[in-house]
Amino acid sequence: MIYLDYSATTPCAPQVMAAMIPYFQDRFGNPSSSHAYGREARAAVEKAREQFAEFIGCSPHEIIFTSGATESNNLIFLSLLLDTNEKRRKIAVSEIEHKSVLLPAKNLAKRGFELILLPVTANGVVDIDAARDLITEDTALVSVHTANNEIGTIQPINELAEIAHRVGAKFHTDAAQALGKMPFNLQNLDSDLASFSSHKIYGPKGIGALYIRGGNSNWPWEYPLFGGGQESGIRPGTHNVPAIVGFGEASHIISHNRDHFLSRLLSYTQSFEDMLTTKSSNYIIHCQNSSRIFGISSIYLDCPKADLILESIADIAVSKSSACNSSSLQKSHVIQAISSDPTMSDRTIRVSFGFDSDESSVSKLVNTLVNAIQVISK
Amino acid sequence: MIYLDYSATTPCAPQVMAAMIPYFQDRFGNPSSSHAYGREARAAVEKAREQFAEFIGCSPHEIIFTSGATESNNLIFLSLLLDTNEKRRKIAVSEIEHKSVLLPAKNLAKRGFELILLPVTANGVVDIDAARDLITEDTALVSVHTANNEIGTIQPINELAEIAHRVGAKFHTDAAQALGKMPFNLQNLDSDLASFSSHKIYGPKGIGALYIRGGNSNWPWEYPLFGGGQESGIRPGTHNVPAIVGFGEASHIISHNRDHFLSRLLSYTQSFEDMLTTKSSNYIIHCQNSSRIFGISSIYLDCPKADLILESIADIAVSKSSACNSSSLQKSHVIQAISSDPTMSDRTIRVSFGFDSDESSVSKLVNTLVNAIQVISK
Repeated sequence: MIYLDYSATTPCAPQVMAAMIPYFQDRFGNPSSSHAYGREARAAVEKAREQFAEFIGCSPHEIIFTSGATESNNLIFLSLLLDTNEKRRKIAVSEIEHKSVLLPAKNLAKRGFELILLPVTANGVVDIDAARDLITEDTALVSVHTANNEIGTIQPINELAEIAHRVGAKFHTDAAQALGKMPFNLQNLDSDLASFSSHKIYGPKGIGALYIRGGNSNWPWEYPLFGGGQESGIRPGTHNVPAIVGFGEASHIISHNRDHFLSRLLSYTQSFEDMLTTKSSNYIIHCQNSSRIFGISSIYLDCPKADLILESIADIAVSKSSACNSSSLQKSHVIQAISSDPTMSDRTIRVSFGFDSDESSVSKLVNTLVNAIQVISK
Repeated sequence: MIYLDYSATTPCAPQVMAAMIPYFQDRFGNPSSSHAYGREARAAVEKAREQFAEFIGCSPHEIIFTSGATESNNLIFLSLLLDTNEKRRKIAVSEIEHKSVLLPAKNLAKRGFELILLPVTANGVVDIDAARDLITEDTALVSVHTANNEIGTIQPINELAEIAHRVGAKFHTDAAQALGKMPFNLQNLDSDLASFSSHKIYGPKGIGALYIRGGNSNWPWEYPLFGGGQESGIRPGTHNVPAIVGFGEASHIISHNRDHFLSRLLSYTQSFEDMLTTKSSNYIIHCQNSSRIFGISSIYLDCPKADLILESIADIAVSKSSACNSSSLQKSHVIQAISSDPTMSDRTIRVSFGFDSDESSVSKLVNTLVNAIQVISK
């Protein structure tokens, strides 16, 4: 079985495991306790916060640990929804956002907000001219992901942040899919808020982060959650210490080996797309000429029974659009946004490489795919 | 260093570690993926759901995995807050709830709801007669914890649920502190909703559950969170597979060794309270004659400088009131509710035993405490 679905989730790196394990049993204290067990756990949380902050280029006090990017995204929209002082009643998100942004935004649209879906071009990138027209003085929040999770297109978030700030709106980016697959540093990025997940970067599941520029005193709207006051009161609940430690360690590994990891991801993607071009003509790589994160290829398979492809290559784990869509029968809203051909969504698979992929899995994938297309097309 | 703060958090049991570890690296799939890695992870999640459901006496489809009891509690209050069809505008919670119930309830009180704080008697138990008067036809939700986290008193939740149901209100109980420290079975309990945490029962941090009687179709109000549709859409976000597996295993261990574990906890508490009575008269055990969960003793130390006690017994990890309060300077709202003496809160410590406590730690604690009181009282 070859795993080529690293954009859905990644295994924990061995160093991540080694860092986490002591905090489940020997160093199991609650960071909110004032005794030595508690202080040891709190120190581990703060070290991880420094590691993650160094990785993304911000100050540790600007990081709130959450259970993952889905929670980070929801916290922002809930926070705005609950703020009765916010006079601006418009929000703008790209039409190809992950559902954990798109659906909270639609929820606000049912509750008195006007929702603007920023259109993307056929290149899978937000149309900047359209965005400039649509983002107006009554906009409270603009939320556009750093890179798309299905087709990998990198979005013009600096331009979008500038447009948002020009009208006084807050800018948020969901960077869950970008982190570890492109150079990313908040020092080069004029974002007020950003969301991250650990399990996309070889850290554990169940932990993520929310970046708040300037720290919790800059939190723009209401706090939606209440409890023991953890994470500056923005995200209460006993700290998930081992997972936080693992997230910190994963960040440390990638930030100190960034160029090596990125070049490997790029090389697998290039090999794959080059080999596929050589061996077959029955496919289209979505947004091939757009600026894309490293390691993702979204491929339209041009054969009538392409829905059978995934079954016929069952010994290679790839994804139909994204993990969050794969078990449902819905068509991908991302593929539909970049193509007017209604069959595109049904016949698209996503291949995503990881740090522990290798060249032999690339050639195995190409050969298997080409054979499957030939057999099914007969 | 002796750890006697098991009510703040517990270490993971060895069997829990063994069950979890494979799901971080080898079986690391995303349960939302349709390929073999995903199916393996999904099966593990569903097995854990069965283990937990068996433990608490409900059906697996009535369980939603969350990041912990704080999130479970918040989801319920947010859900009610966001429901524009709910005509009932009153909520009732006990005055000694954990802050993850008390503060969300106070948030609703700022947003158009009337909040009733159900009073407790000096025995640390909700006053049923007062509750009967206060819970009226306009009440939407009654939320009372199964047992208190600071003083361990078991609440009359069946009577309270009956009072709630008689007027058509929903009943919720935060059972985070009760689970594993008293016989608990939802088949004997007429609750609509209940919250749980894994890290209080020798499972990992960062995972918990919400029980919904009848399953997600009985969810009483709005869904507050949106995303990839996980957990029947009530709690979206990539499943925290290893932690869910660990939570399931912890549940399995306790449910199959319940009487043994409970009798050990009871024996430590009894030894401790008996020894303390023999050796000193400078203390009061809060609510000693109330029905209490096993393993917790809350002790008022009758000496003027009792705030120095915790420092002078630094080689034994016990807690000032609860972990969530211990790093703040606030007085315990629980101790204040059961006593009119304003010094009570400053001079109270919580001792909590665990499955891996032993008799020698009990006698060490008593001797250390008695010595410390004598030295400080001089």
